Amino acid sequence: MNVIIVGATGTIGRAVAKEIGKRHRIISVASKHGDYQVDITDVKSIENMYKEVGKFDALIATAGKMHLAEFSAMNAQMYHVGLMDKLMGQVNLVLIGCKYINDQGSFTLTSGKLSFDPVRGGSSGSMVNAAVDGFVIGAAIEMPRGIRINAVSPTILAESAHQYGHFFPGFEPVESSRVALAYSKSVEGSQNGQIYHVG
Amino acid sequence: MNVIIVGATGTIGRAVAKEIGKRHRIISVASKHGDYQVDITDVKSIENMYKEVGKFDALIATAGKMHLAEFSAMNAQMYHVGLMDKLMGQVNLVLIGCKYINDQGSFTLTSGKLSFDPVRGGSSGSMVNAAVDGFVIGAAIEMPRGIRINAVSPTILAESAHQYGHFFPGFEPVESSRVALAYSKSVEGSQNGQIYHVG
Repeated sequence: MNVIIVGATGTIGRAVAKEIGKRHRIISVASKHGDYQVDITDVKSIENMYKEVGKFDALIATAGKMHLAEFSAMNAQMYHVGLMDKLMGQVNLVLIGCKYINDQGSFTLTSGKLSFDPVRGGSSGSMVNAAVDGFVIGAAIEMPRGIRINAVSPTILAESAHQYGHFFPGFEPVESSRVALAYSKSVEGSQNGQIYHVG
Repeated sequence: MNVIIVGATGTIGRAVAKEIGKRHRIISVASKHGDYQVDITDVKSIENMYKEVGKFDALIATAGKMHLAEFSAMNAQMYHVGLMDKLMGQVNLVLIGCKYINDQGSFTLTSGKLSFDPVRGGSSGSMVNAAVDGFVIGAAIEMPRGIRINAVSPTILAESAHQYGHFFPGFEPVESSRVALAYSKSVEGSQNGQIYHVG
């Protein structure tokens, strides 16, 4: 299979490329590096990326920004960051990617545990991750041509714990290599409309 | 208590006003009718509404538009309708309302069952309702001054079944009077961060 990873240079993206790259061809896409570049907040940039890459069998998205801050400091614009980047960036990768993906292909998006296990300063993460999961659940039953869609919802990564761990008291970090297995299950398995909780 | 209902002239809003109005003062707000008017997509309109109403004890939102259509016909702009109206409209009612609500007050938002029980043409509903639930779960643990926040997630209403029922095959409609009880539980009870599933 030809497997596009958007966010290929991030911690999860690298682990996923390592795992799935054992058996399939990886096309790495990132904002600045990788085989191809894309700005997921720009539908024209997404369209151009797909035109350059050509036909593919699986798209994995491990990219997406959000603005995390104390609830008392949050305003509408700060929530818009996550809605337009992590949420609609991934949604647009699917909407536009449907034109280019092969029959029986798959999309695998990334959400996160905050949707049901909130932390202080994480209200945008709770909102955006839940929205990604909701989109996947809704879109899955209407995907054309045998195309599937799932999401991976990880907890904090062991590799990021030194940097972000203090925001997640009591959360047990998970190695990115374990998170990568969930992407493998989505891409190489046959399930549809699933939210894979890891950690 | 002084209880603001935004969307007071809708099917749920009227049922909620009837139920909670038995015991509390209702301030009805809607886009065109009611005691006060508000455009929930406009933060200035929300700010003005709160300034006019003054101090209050509970805000119930039963308003919010979404664009529902077959997944194959959906584009980014169509998803934005629900994100900017039903999602951020309700979120902004909370963000701005925090300045005006009394200590130990409550916000009660409205999501919907599509977040986990999808239907054809409902992918925006699945996304937006999940996002509302996620926001509530995230914000609840950070609300100041003893303020609480919950969401009511109803299935299709019996009163709407003649109009929308064909989009929800096999869904058992619920009377709006039963949905209203969940808003009563949120406002008159003491729970926080709950998603009340009705039907």
